[in-house]
Amino acid sequence: MTKHAALPGRLLMLGFGSIGQGVLPLILRHIDITPDHITIISPDDAGKAVADEYGVTFLKMALTRENYVGELEARLGQGDFLCNVSVEVSSLALIRKCRELGALYVDTCIEPWPGGYTDPDLSPSQRSNYALRETALDLKRELGAGSTAVIAHGANPGLVSHFLKVALLDIAKASGVDATRPDSREGWAALAQALDVKVVHIAERDTQKGEPAKARGEFVNTWSVNGFVGEGCQPSELGWGTHEPEMPPEGRRHDFGCDSAIYLMRPGAGTRVRTWVPSEGPIHGWLVTHNESISIADYFTVRDEAGAVVYRPTSHYAYHPCDEAVLSLHEFAGKNWELQPSVRILMNEIQPGGVDELGVLINGPAKGSYWYGSQLTIDEARELAPHNNATSLQVTVSVLAAMIWAIENPTAGLVEPEEVDERRIMEISTPYLGTMAGYWTNWTPLQDRETLFPEDLDRSEPWAFKNVIVR
Amino acid sequence: MTKHAALPGRLLMLGFGSIGQGVLPLILRHIDITPDHITIISPDDAGKAVADEYGVTFLKMALTRENYVGELEARLGQGDFLCNVSVEVSSLALIRKCRELGALYVDTCIEPWPGGYTDPDLSPSQRSNYALRETALDLKRELGAGSTAVIAHGANPGLVSHFLKVALLDIAKASGVDATRPDSREGWAALAQALDVKVVHIAERDTQKGEPAKARGEFVNTWSVNGFVGEGCQPSELGWGTHEPEMPPEGRRHDFGCDSAIYLMRPGAGTRVRTWVPSEGPIHGWLVTHNESISIADYFTVRDEAGAVVYRPTSHYAYHPCDEAVLSLHEFAGKNWELQPSVRILMNEIQPGGVDELGVLINGPAKGSYWYGSQLTIDEARELAPHNNATSLQVTVSVLAAMIWAIENPTAGLVEPEEVDERRIMEISTPYLGTMAGYWTNWTPLQDRETLFPEDLDRSEPWAFKNVIVR
Ligand SMILES: NC(=O)c1ccc[n+]([C@@H]2O[C@H](COP(=O)([O-])OP(=O)(O)OC[C@H]3O[C@@H](n4cnc5c(N)ncnc54)[C@H](O)[C@@H]3O)[C@@H](O)[C@H]2O)c1
Ligand SMILES: NC(=O)c1ccc[n+]([C@@H]2O[C@H](COP(=O)([O-])OP(=O)(O)OC[C@H]3O[C@@H](n4cnc5c(N)ncnc54)[C@H](O)[C@@H]3O)[C@@H](O)[C@H]2O)c1
Repeated sequence: MTKHAALPGRLLMLGFGSIGQGVLPLILRHIDITPDHITIISPDDAGKAVADEYGVTFLKMALTRENYVGELEARLGQGDFLCNVSVEVSSLALIRKCRELGALYVDTCIEPWPGGYTDPDLSPSQRSNYALRETALDLKRELGAGSTAVIAHGANPGLVSHFLKVALLDIAKASGVDATRPDSREGWAALAQALDVKVVHIAERDTQKGEPAKARGEFVNTWSVNGFVGEGCQPSELGWGTHEPEMPPEGRRHDFGCDSAIYLMRPGAGTRVRTWVPSEGPIHGWLVTHNESISIADYFTVRDEAGAVVYRPTSHYAYHPCDEAVLSLHEFAGKNWELQPSVRILMNEIQPGGVDELGVLINGPAKGSYWYGSQLTIDEARELAPHNNATSLQVTVSVLAAMIWAIENPTAGLVEPEEVDERRIMEISTPYLGTMAGYWTNWTPLQDRETLFPEDLDRSEPWAFKNVIVR
Repeated sequence: MTKHAALPGRLLMLGFGSIGQGVLPLILRHIDITPDHITIISPDDAGKAVADEYGVTFLKMALTRENYVGELEARLGQGDFLCNVSVEVSSLALIRKCRELGALYVDTCIEPWPGGYTDPDLSPSQRSNYALRETALDLKRELGAGSTAVIAHGANPGLVSHFLKVALLDIAKASGVDATRPDSREGWAALAQALDVKVVHIAERDTQKGEPAKARGEFVNTWSVNGFVGEGCQPSELGWGTHEPEMPPEGRRHDFGCDSAIYLMRPGAGTRVRTWVPSEGPIHGWLVTHNESISIADYFTVRDEAGAVVYRPTSHYAYHPCDEAVLSLHEFAGKNWELQPSVRILMNEIQPGGVDELGVLINGPAKGSYWYGSQLTIDEARELAPHNNATSLQVTVSVLAAMIWAIENPTAGLVEPEEVDERRIMEISTPYLGTMAGYWTNWTPLQDRETLFPEDLDRSEPWAFKNVIVR
C-alpha cells in the first residue's frame, strides 16, 4: 500500500472508540510510522484488544482539565503528532498545548470539556457550535502561523466541504459557467454566488442495520452515541443564507462573531427537516448542529467593499441516521433528553447490504439540485479496512488524509477543512469512499406539499428554510 | 370452551384481514354456530387458507357502493348477523341495510366508502371521525329502536371505553369517593367530574418485533396498514375538555353536531404527544384520530339545566405503535404521506417477548394519574388463540364480546361502546387480555421539561393540551 507520508516522530492518539480503532489501521497502512512510536490514551478498555493486535501502547486514562498539561508534555514535542478522536476533551486546550510543544494536531470536531454541550448554566448561544468555532477562530488569530492544527476534519465536518468544492465545479461545467478551479476563498464564494447556490444540505442517509435490534432503554448508532447525543442536545444551528426571506420564530442571531449562522431555541435531536438523497428521494432528516454548517456559510460569503454581506448560502445538516438510531432518538425525546441507560455502537454485528450515503445537496442552481458524495456499503467498508463500518470509514479516511496534509504542510497554523486543499484530500480518500457520484434532481421542499392540509409555506422562495423545516 | 350465546341464523363476515382471521376462531369457540352457517366476503386471497381450515365459505369479492345492496339481500335476513371487519366499505350503508333486513351488526370503527379519509375535495372537518360519528348519530336517531348495531367496538375504539369505567370505579374506591356503579350516562359523567378527571389518554405501547426488519419502501404494522394509514392521514382529533385554557393554534371547532371534540389542521401521523405507560414510563405517542376520543368526551359530558356544558374531559389517543411502524411513519412522513409501495402486517414472524400494552391513562384526580388496561404478550396471545398477535387479540375478543352482547340484546338499535354494559364485555374479554392491571403514577407532561431550552408551557394547568403536544 502507498505510504503517502512519513512521520518520524511520535504519534499520540486520544480516545480509541469507533473512530480511533478505525483510523489506526489506516495510519499504519498509509503513513510511514512503526507501532512502537504510537501511544493511545483512552479511559476505557473498549479498544484495548485492537491496540494489542497492532502492538501499540494503550494507556487507560482519561485526559482532564487537571492532568492534560502533564500528560501531553510527557508525550509530545517538536514534530510529534496528536490525533484527537476522543470526546469530552477540549480541542482548544489541546491545540494551544500542541503549538507550545511544536506538535501537529488533527481532530474531527471542536469539542469542549465535559458538560459544554448541555450545561444549563450556559445560554443556548454559548453552548452552540457557533460559539465553539468563534473561540477556535480567536485562537487561530492569536496563534498565527506555526505548527499545523486541522480542526473538524472527519466526514462531516470535514470531507463534505471538499465534496462541495468538487460539486461546485461539476455544476459550473454542466451549466456552461467557467469551471476553472478558484484559488482563493473569495474565488470559491464568487463561484457559489454565480451558480445561484442558495442552500447546501449535508444530506446523509445511513441504512446500516445491526442484530439484535435496539432494545428498550438502549441508544444504538453506527458511531459515537455520546458524540451524537451531545450534538443532538445542542441548539439546532444552520448557516443562514442571504436569500432567506424570514427568520424562523425560534431562530436567534448570536451577538458576537462572524454572524454566518443562526441557532434555533430547540435541540437538533428534536428538529426534522426535508431533504433528498439519491437512493431514496425525499426524506426527513434531523437538523443536528455541525461545525460545517457554520464554516461553509462563512467561507462562501461574498462581501462588498464596505464589508457588508451580499451573498451567503444557507447550509445545514439533514441527517437520517440508521433505523435503530431513529428509534433511539424517538425514545430519547420521549424521556425529555435523558439518555438511555445503555448505549451500543454497531460494528461487527452490522448485516450485509447497508449503505452510508453522505453528500452535499446543492440547491438553487438553474439546472436543478445536485447531490454529490459517497455511497459506501458496509460490505465495501469491510473489504477496504479492518475495524470500520461504512460510517466510520468515511470519517477515518478523512482523519488520515488530514494527518497526511498536516505532515506535508506542517506550519499552516490552525486551519478549518475549507482551507485545506480538497484535491489532496480527495486523492487520499477516494479509494475508501465506495461510489463517489453526482446526481441531479428537480426535488424542492415544496414538492407534494399541502395534499391533505394547508401549510404555512413560502411559495415565492422554494428554498426558504420555512419550507424545509418539518412542523 | 364456554359457548356464551347461540346464533341460529347465518353469519356474514365482511373482510378477512388480520382482524377477520383472528376473530373467526373465537366466534367458533364461543358462539354456538357451525361453519356451514358462515360466509366470508373479501376481495383478496389473503385469508383463504384460514377460511378453508375452518370450513367456512369464502367469496372473493369486494363490496362496493354498486353491489352491496344485492349482496347483503342475498345473504342476510331476520336474526342473521353481519360482522364487518373490512376497510373501505361504508359502515352506515351496511347498518341501514341490516336494519331493513332485521340483521344484527357489529363493526370496529365507522368506516366511509373509499377515499373518505383522504379526499382532498372534502374539508378536514368533513373527513374527520367527528363528522363520521355525527352521521352515525343522525342515523341512530333516525332508525330508533330495532335490530342491534354496535359500532366502533374493537380494542380502541371499543374495549377502552369499558376500561375507563372500570378504572373510574377503581379511582373512586382509592379516593374514598362513593364507588357504587352508576347506571346512567349522567351518573358516569358525574363520577368523572367528581373525581376531577381532566384528561383521558388512550395510552398504548406496542413492543412486538418481527423478522425480517422493515425494508426501505415498506410499511410494517401489527394490524391493518391501510386502516392505520387511513386514520393517520385524517386530521388529529381530540375530545376537548372544559379545563383546557387555550385552543391550539391549529385547532378548529366543527360547526355542527355535539361539539365534544376539536380537530387539528394536521394529520395524526405527524402529531406527537406525551403520555405514560406502566412498562416504560414517559413516551411520545401519535395523536391519531379515533372514534373513542370523541365518544368518550361526549359521553362523560355534564350539562346544566339549560343544556350548557359544565364539565367534559379531554380525551385522545396516544399511540406508540411497534418499532417497525414508527420507522414506517417516519418514512411515510418523508414522502409527504404517499404510502410506501409495499405493506406488511406482522403475524407469524413476530418474535417472542413483545407486548401490546393498551389502556386508559386517567389524569387529573388528586391521588395521581391512573393507567388501567391490558398488557398482553405475543406469547400469551399465541397460547390463547390461533391466527392472532397481541394487538389483534385485544380487538378480536372485543368483536366477539360485542357480537355476544348484540345476540343477547337484539333490539338495542344503533349503539356506541359506552352504551354497552362494560361488565358483560369485560367478563367475556378478560380471559384473553393477559395481565389486566391498574398503575398509579405522579407523571405529568411538565415533568423534566425545559432542562435544555425554554418552552412555551402552561405551568398553571399541567393537564393543558399545550403541555402534551410535542412541538
Ligand atoms: N466529523 C465527523 O465526521 C465525525 C464522525 C464521527 C465521530 N466524530 C467525532 O469523533 C469523536 C470520536 O467518535 P467515536 O465514534 O470514536 O466515539 P466513541 O464514543 O466510540 O469513542 C470516544 C472515545 O473517547 C474516549 N474518551 C472519553 N473521554 C475521554 C477523555 N477524558 N480522555 C480521553 N479519551 C476519552 C472514550 O473512551 C472513547 O474511546 C467524537 O468527538 C465524535 O463527535 C466526528
Ligand atoms: N377498533 C379497533 O381496535 C381496531 C383495531 C384494528 C383494526 N380495526 C379496524 O378493523 C378493520 C380491519 O382491520 P384489519 O387489521 O383486519 O385490516 P386488514 O387490512 O388486515 O384487512 C382488511 C380486510 O378488508 C378487506 N376489504 C378491503 N376492501 C374491501 C371491500 N371493498 N369489501 C370487502 N372487504 C374488503 C381486505 O381484503 C381485508 O381482508 C379496519 O377498518 C380497521 O381500522 C379496528
